[in-house]
Amino acid sequence: MALHRFVPTRWHNTLGQHEPEFHCQDGDTVIIDTLDAFGVDKDGISRASSPNPVNAPIFIEGAEPGDALCVEILRMTPTRGTGWTFTGLAANVIDPGAIASLPPREMVTWLIDRQMLTTRLENPPAGLEYLTLPLDPMIGCFGVAPALGQAFSNATSAENGGNMDYRRFGPGTTVWFPVAVPGALFSLGDGHAIQGDGEIVGTGIETTFEIEVRLSIAKGRKLVWPRGETADDIFSIGNARPLDQALQHATTDMMNWLIADYGLSSAGASHLMGQVVRYDVGNVFDPAYTMACRIPKKWLPPKAV
Amino acid sequence: MALHRFVPTRWHNTLGQHEPEFHCQDGDTVIIDTLDAFGVDKDGISRASSPNPVNAPIFIEGAEPGDALCVEILRMTPTRGTGWTFTGLAANVIDPGAIASLPPREMVTWLIDRQMLTTRLENPPAGLEYLTLPLDPMIGCFGVAPALGQAFSNATSAENGGNMDYRRFGPGTTVWFPVAVPGALFSLGDGHAIQGDGEIVGTGIETTFEIEVRLSIAKGRKLVWPRGETADDIFSIGNARPLDQALQHATTDMMNWLIADYGLSSAGASHLMGQVVRYDVGNVFDPAYTMACRIPKKWLPPKAV
Amino acid sequence: MALHRFVPTRWHNTLGQHEPEFHCQDGDTVIIDTLDAFGVDKDGISRASSPNPVNAPIFIEGAEPGDALCVEILRMTPTRGTGWTFTGLAANVIDPGAIASLPPREMVTWLIDRQMLTTRLENPPAGLEYLTLPLDPMIGCFGVAPALGQAFSNATSAENGGNMDYRRFGPGTTVWFPVAVPGALFSLGDGHAIQGDGEIVGTGIETTFEIEVRLSIAKGRKLVWPRGETADDIFSIGNARPLDQALQHATTDMMNWLIADYGLSSAGASHLMGQVVRYDVGNVFDPAYTMACRIPKKWLPPKAV
Amino acid sequence: MALHRFVPTRWHNTLGQHEPEFHCQDGDTVIIDTLDAFGVDKDGISRASSPNPVNAPIFIEGAEPGDALCVEILRMTPTRGTGWTFTGLAANVIDPGAIASLPPREMVTWLIDRQMLTTRLENPPAGLEYLTLPLDPMIGCFGVAPALGQAFSNATSAENGGNMDYRRFGPGTTVWFPVAVPGALFSLGDGHAIQGDGEIVGTGIETTFEIEVRLSIAKGRKLVWPRGETADDIFSIGNARPLDQALQHATTDMMNWLIADYGLSSAGASHLMGQVVRYDVGNVFDPAYTMACRIPKKWLPPKAV
Repeated sequence: MALHRFVPTRWHNTLGQHEPEFHCQDGDTVIIDTLDAFGVDKDGISRASSPNPVNAPIFIEGAEPGDALCVEILRMTPTRGTGWTFTGLAANVIDPGAIASLPPREMVTWLIDRQMLTTRLENPPAGLEYLTLPLDPMIGCFGVAPALGQAFSNATSAENGGNMDYRRFGPGTTVWFPVAVPGALFSLGDGHAIQGDGEIVGTGIETTFEIEVRLSIAKGRKLVWPRGETADDIFSIGNARPLDQALQHATTDMMNWLIADYGLSSAGASHLMGQVVRYDVGNVFDPAYTMACRIPKKWLPPKAV
Repeated sequence: MALHRFVPTRWHNTLGQHEPEFHCQDGDTVIIDTLDAFGVDKDGISRASSPNPVNAPIFIEGAEPGDALCVEILRMTPTRGTGWTFTGLAANVIDPGAIASLPPREMVTWLIDRQMLTTRLENPPAGLEYLTLPLDPMIGCFGVAPALGQAFSNATSAENGGNMDYRRFGPGTTVWFPVAVPGALFSLGDGHAIQGDGEIVGTGIETTFEIEVRLSIAKGRKLVWPRGETADDIFSIGNARPLDQALQHATTDMMNWLIADYGLSSAGASHLMGQVVRYDVGNVFDPAYTMACRIPKKWLPPKAV
Repeated sequence: MALHRFVPTRWHNTLGQHEPEFHCQDGDTVIIDTLDAFGVDKDGISRASSPNPVNAPIFIEGAEPGDALCVEILRMTPTRGTGWTFTGLAANVIDPGAIASLPPREMVTWLIDRQMLTTRLENPPAGLEYLTLPLDPMIGCFGVAPALGQAFSNATSAENGGNMDYRRFGPGTTVWFPVAVPGALFSLGDGHAIQGDGEIVGTGIETTFEIEVRLSIAKGRKLVWPRGETADDIFSIGNARPLDQALQHATTDMMNWLIADYGLSSAGASHLMGQVVRYDVGNVFDPAYTMACRIPKKWLPPKAV
Repeated sequence: MALHRFVPTRWHNTLGQHEPEFHCQDGDTVIIDTLDAFGVDKDGISRASSPNPVNAPIFIEGAEPGDALCVEILRMTPTRGTGWTFTGLAANVIDPGAIASLPPREMVTWLIDRQMLTTRLENPPAGLEYLTLPLDPMIGCFGVAPALGQAFSNATSAENGGNMDYRRFGPGTTVWFPVAVPGALFSLGDGHAIQGDGEIVGTGIETTFEIEVRLSIAKGRKLVWPRGETADDIFSIGNARPLDQALQHATTDMMNWLIADYGLSSAGASHLMGQVVRYDVGNVFDPAYTMACRIPKKWLPPKAV
């Protein structure tokens, strides 16, 4: 249950079986500084290439295929006074016939007030001068090494996590990933100061963070997709295109979760989900889209055993 | 600004250019009793056929193509002690390989407590005995006659509204529909006592309501898609398959709304939407899926004249 | 078995329950002149509005819901020396990021040589001067009135046919449509001199034809989707978005066809289809896409009964 | 220009940066024996695990990122008297509501007559006793290492090729892959004796082959997607879900090909493609679907330069 500070010296643009740079025990807490999506650190120094560089993996002692890696996001402290976004909605989120009307795609700067925990455009266009948003930090890209010796670009996501860009992956949330290799090989990066649903400009407000996570092992908890829990909700994640398929993955996983852990029959799970489920769009920008199927805990049955 | 009670004697299974059965003035309020999705009324009498019978149209005097019909949902009072749903998640919302594990598709009864404003299964399956849900009434199917002399089944939806099954279409919400024919020809039906996102069992809790709506005309407010406003939010609707395309329609409409009515440039609309937008899944069961692109009012610029 | 010439005086932009303008008997042959997709006739006179005007319906005596209307396309004779297309691939058939590189969307003229049965651009862009294509006439939009009192724009298609834009709907092909109303109410229009798969510029070479069709009734042949037969193949049609769903409809229909009419079990139909099926893309431009699932007759079992 | 026989001792279930087991020169021809999709060799011995094991990579001397690897499929000789398929259409190619009617998914044997070059079911179900099909060999899975250090399961496909299951990848076809790493790292496997469009039972007739390919380097021929050429056609490949997106990738690539290599403007490419293009469905079974955009050579302009 130790508290560590891990200072990476290598970053990767994929989640895969990279050599780990840090080892920890089941239940340890790790503090780590992240780079922004372009690989720039808190001091403005370029340390790695895009897309979405993540730390060389953390090896969690004792994690084995068939386990789940439990990641409690304890804290995300912004470490830079600026973030950036792109101008213009992404071409794939608007009608094809409207794409020609989009503004040129340029990088713009947001100022981050680390005392007030707010952010605003450095040079707002006419009509947006009023806009100051509260920070709502989240992790854009994190996960473990995928199965079968695969390695996936940090531009996308899959069963092992990755670039899901879901705004509920912030402080206070616990996430479980399916472990496919010994040690799990956990990495993270691509922090956002705030992001709307869908990451529809292709970015949240991209900046650097000091992130504190507690890493523990749920032995033998076979998962297919990432799952999460907040103070109020539980949720299952699906990553795929089209969005319909991401929704199918997340819905199926939630049904299986309710049956396996909450003692419901298939019919019971259907009745409950049908009337109380909520869907959240993670991202509709990346190669794989992300959909969360979420249920408020207040409607859940008592957990079986 | 009169208050009317309209007692329909005809119902239709399409939104189209049916002969109107009631005429009202711009700004009038109308109280109407709805049938459930199978055409059964509050007394258990079958009055019309499925799918989703809606009243013979209301003709709003003065509504012309190019206007918007503004529908304020003032009240939805449940008028029956029971509602019904289907058992089993819809085949199209789970992974194809998991469909064989679904329970048989049967109709089940929910008891509606009209004093406590709650509902529960008449015969809950094991493990769901605890479940009593608050009522959260909403209109499943409503809209106006479509353009070009078309007529669409009430099983689906399009630019003119229809079977959108979006849970924010309840009391306190104002909706605008694009008027395509003189008088707009407004109809409604398919009330739900409560429904989760997506209508993923193919139904909300289907029952009958006394619904009070105020109907007024927004002259010359050319719309492509339905739009809405709640106490806290504005939203644009897209209806299409796949869900990706519904999202594109809704997102494009919101962008155009922000530019036209809130004085933002295309770049300004993008910056705002990118960091504050929320997506709600209306339905992922009907032939056309429904996605809402929603923005909290607190982040909107002051409305341009 | 009479031969008629039907000269329409009304055209419609929807397939729906319009008043028929011509009545014929089961087995009659009808010759009819079509307008082009913009409603212009063979003499260059504008006779109707777009999209895709079709003749006021033909009522086939004796056709009843549950029957199929059999349409043998006997002849398509081009009746004009010119056709037209649009410049530029449709925005929905290329990558969103490539849309900005498309040329402006303009109408261009093709010259049709009715002796040689060829066509070429009137003013070919540099590098295309060589291109002279053989005519390969096809019907873009045809079908019967849909079920449930619906009416669909001729821009799109559904179970009743419509704007399918499938290049095998030409002379020598027989098509069956599911009859939903007495008399079937058959209409056609939108002839193309030639068209590639997908109608990816949004048009074939749009022109006028004299079309000869034989109309007969297949009593009680309950269909869900249009089916067709050429000299070499049989095929089932699916109309929907996305293309995946159109493919699912067509594939399911072919499986059911093989089971019902060719005496195969579900397993037998699967074995056959798995190794010999061909898919043709009808259109990927219209609101509903069209996919054909096709099987060469040489691989079919002897027809049952 | 040597002729080699390469006898692999390692196989992989991904395309990635595996250590090469064979090196050859630009222009060499290589003969290689393939395993079937389950890793069984021509003698019935299990040599590798599924899915779709491919040989440890061939390193082509001189191939560099930015080049294309040209693969001429010279010969595919079946090396076993049996192949296998699954019973039952895949769940994702039929309507969700029809899935419950599918037969149980079992492996069945086809007999391969290597003299007559035909194949038939060992135990045909009733009604299929007549069915003997000609062999039409094709490579299901082949390609090069992907970019960015990624590695993808042989169950799927991407820009670097993979499990495309396109029936035109047979003898007489030339394919170009985008080279992302030095030596290209070419592998192949998953041969099919014949396969219908879409691989809709999840398999072609899976068997083993002796395959002869000529491997050469097209220096500096930057590609995004695989391209191919047969005696009659050229084609571009897109791999993605949904099928609509695979089609967009293939169509965009063909447009770019016509502009870059055939001297057409964007408008010229559109005119040509619009009227002559053909789409072939590769697979609609694997995680990424495959669509080919194909143009008959007879309609192409003379190649520029």
